[in-house]
Amino acid sequence: MRATNIFRVEHSVSDDARYVRNGHHGGVLWLTGLSGSGKSTLAIGLERRLFDLGYQVYVLDGDNVRHGLNNDLGFSQADREENIRRIGEMAALMARAGMVVLSAFISPYRTDRERARTACGEAFHELYVKADLATCEERDPKGLYVKARKGEISDFTGISAPYEAPENPELTIDTVAFDVEECIDRAVEYVRANFDLKKADHPHGQRDR
Amino acid sequence: MRATNIFRVEHSVSDDARYVRNGHHGGVLWLTGLSGSGKSTLAIGLERRLFDLGYQVYVLDGDNVRHGLNNDLGFSQADREENIRRIGEMAALMARAGMVVLSAFISPYRTDRERARTACGEAFHELYVKADLATCEERDPKGLYVKARKGEISDFTGISAPYEAPENPELTIDTVAFDVEECIDRAVEYVRANFDLKKADHPHGQRDR
Repeated sequence: MRATNIFRVEHSVSDDARYVRNGHHGGVLWLTGLSGSGKSTLAIGLERRLFDLGYQVYVLDGDNVRHGLNNDLGFSQADREENIRRIGEMAALMARAGMVVLSAFISPYRTDRERARTACGEAFHELYVKADLATCEERDPKGLYVKARKGEISDFTGISAPYEAPENPELTIDTVAFDVEECIDRAVEYVRANFDLKKADHPHGQRDR
Repeated sequence: MRATNIFRVEHSVSDDARYVRNGHHGGVLWLTGLSGSGKSTLAIGLERRLFDLGYQVYVLDGDNVRHGLNNDLGFSQADREENIRRIGEMAALMARAGMVVLSAFISPYRTDRERARTACGEAFHELYVKADLATCEERDPKGLYVKARKGEISDFTGISAPYEAPENPELTIDTVAFDVEECIDRAVEYVRANFDLKKADHPHGQRDR
């Protein structure tokens, strides 16, 4: 029977092979910050810039996660935890597939973010999108702070629920002090320094970007 | 204040931009078949070949999904359904990110697979990994059929639980009639015909592969 060897072991594609092919490591930039701090704007602008520079890059945000993978979850404490847990695990897988994943969720609790870090291992980079509450409330791009102040939204981060700022993030970007393009510049610089293929790892020298 | 424009809308990276960059569409090859039909062997061999041909490709299987994203799920009927639902949603996202996703799960129920198809839309390609039960039981690579026959595993697909074969799969690969390399050849041919960048869509003509 010809097919008896169908179960022989074949090696899969290694992380290193993806790294050399893409010219960069896969990894997760985990954006955390208050509602209105600028996470989505930064993530989307950064995705555009990184893509144009040749990176394999993708944004995970409420739009594509809450309506799909996590559409069975509500906003109870347990469901919010599970929401972040799954995002961490999915980001870890996409990073292993070679992508630079930009996750943009408030993710207010340190324990939830630490769990995502554990799932992703060394590929995890916490990016604190920093803006004070007063500024975020003034921006209020979705009108959520107004509703939260009226009590129409319960457990709203910064108003009626805590935000635990990162204690030791890999990168902090202050969106009050800097404009969008400057914020993106800083993030790109960080990605280049931490994700790019090292000359020593490249068969034909460093890739130009 | 400089940061007041932080919420201006920026366009994200389009599916088409990823398609042109990668030289192929993102999409999901959903391998379904009995335990021992050769799904994992085909998926891993196919991943290797497609990677060497320049594709962005990644395998989702029990190893990387059950220990991570779905580590909260057991083997009850509800949990098995939820397992496949999440895999479908995750595969859909990775396909949107531009990857060719090879998912390798028994996924015995038509309704579960149809739900994955709905999540993925046009990017979904069902690949029936076909082998008769007697052959799979003879191969029994993990010794599971022996245990199932002894009653040590309950609800085992093909023995004590149904396998609903695809009625109209995009591709059928018969792993009894063909050896591993031939099976991979057929799958590669399918991917080339259905995922590759069309000449008309490419600014500089068709990509060579």
